[in-house]
Amino acid sequence: MPGDERLREIERLFATKIPLTQAMQVRALVYDETRLVLEAPLEPNHNHLGTAFGGSLAALLVLTGYGLLWLELDDPSWHLVVRDCSIQYRAPVTGPLRAIAPRPPAPQMATFRRTLERKGRARIELTALIEQDGEPAAEFRGMFVALRP
Amino acid sequence: MPGDERLREIERLFATKIPLTQAMQVRALVYDETRLVLEAPLEPNHNHLGTAFGGSLAALLVLTGYGLLWLELDDPSWHLVVRDCSIQYRAPVTGPLRAIAPRPPAPQMATFRRTLERKGRARIELTALIEQDGEPAAEFRGMFVALRP
Repeated sequence: MPGDERLREIERLFATKIPLTQAMQVRALVYDETRLVLEAPLEPNHNHLGTAFGGSLAALLVLTGYGLLWLELDDPSWHLVVRDCSIQYRAPVTGPLRAIAPRPPAPQMATFRRTLERKGRARIELTALIEQDGEPAAEFRGMFVALRP
Repeated sequence: MPGDERLREIERLFATKIPLTQAMQVRALVYDETRLVLEAPLEPNHNHLGTAFGGSLAALLVLTGYGLLWLELDDPSWHLVVRDCSIQYRAPVTGPLRAIAPRPPAPQMATFRRTLERKGRARIELTALIEQDGEPAAEFRGMFVALRP
């Protein structure tokens, strides 16, 4: 399925299933060989200092990890949940909130799929970052779990 | 200042300065000798499984740490930011999202204030949790920094 169609698919999932993404005005910009990119404007996501609210950044990062795994698995019958995460905030974000999650290497995804098929449950560590002017403004690591409901 | 008045004060801060808190419908329920409690209904904060979205929980936890420090310092001239955080998700949240942050012990706050006055900048580690039926459903640890703008 072409990348653009998959972007619309994930935007529909967010819009219909996760209402906070609508308040945040999240858009899916890129899903290609290397990464998923989500973006949200600053206006609904700013804090008391006029920069991005740390909670909005956290929500966008969790969403990017979740969205990436959903796209990679490409099978909505699996339940995906976040198990734990950590975030390092490096610099204030003064413009749009842009989150980038690199696609997991093929061998990592292959192991994940094999475990999932064998045990009905598997976990995978994903990373993502908030980029501003080509520099990381926040770094995220999250453990996600897929399981058969 | 009585606790109730301070609750209204922090709700006004959230409402006027951090728009996402309005979309999340965050309310400040308790600020007493021991803790700050914030709550948000499930409806605007659910995910694709009908339980609390991990991103909403993350945003509420960051907000609770930030709000607690803002109330403790009681001086809006300081800038407060989150530096890093980690979250362990223990169980799905199937009702209102209720976040509880214990007030830091008096000696920890005293050290924090002294550093702040001496150096114009200080950091403090805060914890918070999401409680459901008296059990922790998510645990948060965050490092917050106060600085003179």
